[in-house]
Amino acid sequence: MYPTLELNQLIVVLVATRNPLNIGAAARAMSNFGARELRVVNPYEIAFREAKSAVGASHVLGRAEEFPSVADAVADCRLVVGTTSAGPRTLKHPLRPLVEGGRIIRRHLAAGRVALLFGSEKVGLSTEHMTHCHWLMRVPTREQHRSMNLAQSVAVCLYELVRGGTSPGPPAKREKDRIHAEDAERMTQLLLRALAGSGYVKPATTETTEQKLRRMVRRLELSAEDGEIWLGMLRQIVWKIDR
Amino acid sequence: MYPTLELNQLIVVLVATRNPLNIGAAARAMSNFGARELRVVNPYEIAFREAKSAVGASHVLGRAEEFPSVADAVADCRLVVGTTSAGPRTLKHPLRPLVEGGRIIRRHLAAGRVALLFGSEKVGLSTEHMTHCHWLMRVPTREQHRSMNLAQSVAVCLYELVRGGTSPGPPAKREKDRIHAEDAERMTQLLLRALAGSGYVKPATTETTEQKLRRMVRRLELSAEDGEIWLGMLRQIVWKIDR
Repeated sequence: MYPTLELNQLIVVLVATRNPLNIGAAARAMSNFGARELRVVNPYEIAFREAKSAVGASHVLGRAEEFPSVADAVADCRLVVGTTSAGPRTLKHPLRPLVEGGRIIRRHLAAGRVALLFGSEKVGLSTEHMTHCHWLMRVPTREQHRSMNLAQSVAVCLYELVRGGTSPGPPAKREKDRIHAEDAERMTQLLLRALAGSGYVKPATTETTEQKLRRMVRRLELSAEDGEIWLGMLRQIVWKIDR
Repeated sequence: MYPTLELNQLIVVLVATRNPLNIGAAARAMSNFGARELRVVNPYEIAFREAKSAVGASHVLGRAEEFPSVADAVADCRLVVGTTSAGPRTLKHPLRPLVEGGRIIRRHLAAGRVALLFGSEKVGLSTEHMTHCHWLMRVPTREQHRSMNLAQSVAVCLYELVRGGTSPGPPAKREKDRIHAEDAERMTQLLLRALAGSGYVKPATTETTEQKLRRMVRRLELSAEDGEIWLGMLRQIVWKIDR
């Protein structure tokens, strides 16, 4: 009857949240379902401070941290999942329904930290934010009214994670040894420098190229060990090109 | 990926809601998951009027109705389920976790209207409100922080109903022919009059006796046909006693 799967390893990341009430309401849902770690990226103006000082601010809000970018907020996570209400046509990422996505996340939670991203109330996650994600997940709302209230969406996603009630057993080796988001981002930046230095990337197109590269690197789903090797190779290439 | 189970037959009943924002947020969750019929019982002061005039008030709020009592709000339903964050020890009703309760509700939805009750933000459903329910349901929150935000609770319950994605097939005869809440309440009142008139119920204890009787009548899970017979018998008894 009560959740036995621990959500200790789950990081809820709220990106560009506008309304402090929503941060507080998301924190309450986290506390209800046993998730502890809240990170906020660029909340609007004083939204985060207000939420923190709110009456009844729980232990979740008390230890919540603010980050300047999505990259920083997810650096220590092995799996990064974005939530969206958009349809698959407009997306450049694999999109999974919540039940399927929840199953994969549960498996990864047994192996290491997983970040679950929620975008702003108005526009959700941007294309740029999404490039930091391995895949996207969607709550099965009606076609005619897809967009959910932010904290309700957090509540439904966390409910799906604890719903099964039991831990899914030991993680596969593949999930355990996965590269951290931090190293995937290092690799993306090195690759970008190498391509820029070698004339592959034109200045005018750098930004979209960066997004494409970031998605591509996440799709590799590298092991930590292979990540190290790649970083070494790319550092060497960049050194050579920069000379 | 999108819900195919229709929630047309589901009635969401908000009892004694204080905050108009919560009525609006509950209506949004209903719209997200395809539930249409919202009923409110004794909302605080102007909460309902404010919610109705709220910006973005959807078709759900537009057709929402206000009722003076739980009995009136659920009169045309065959199954009445209350939500609670309380533990089983304090309750006089069967308590089902959401996954199990959701399965039963889905089966009944194929047969007729089901009412799902949500109590006030502060105290939830009262013992008196609960007497109108066949059983209670609980979202699996942590023991240390059970109480959910009202609209988040609505969102999670509706998600559980549409999650499976498919209708559970034709209803059993038993669910189809079930007595309406209206007739169950008539029967309760007749039984109470009969017991009062025959000296079984002392005036001082009438209220708690009424609650016990109401729960007992719901536990019978009578068919509509047997309900008719019972009503006839009780009317006759009351007529005799009142003479």
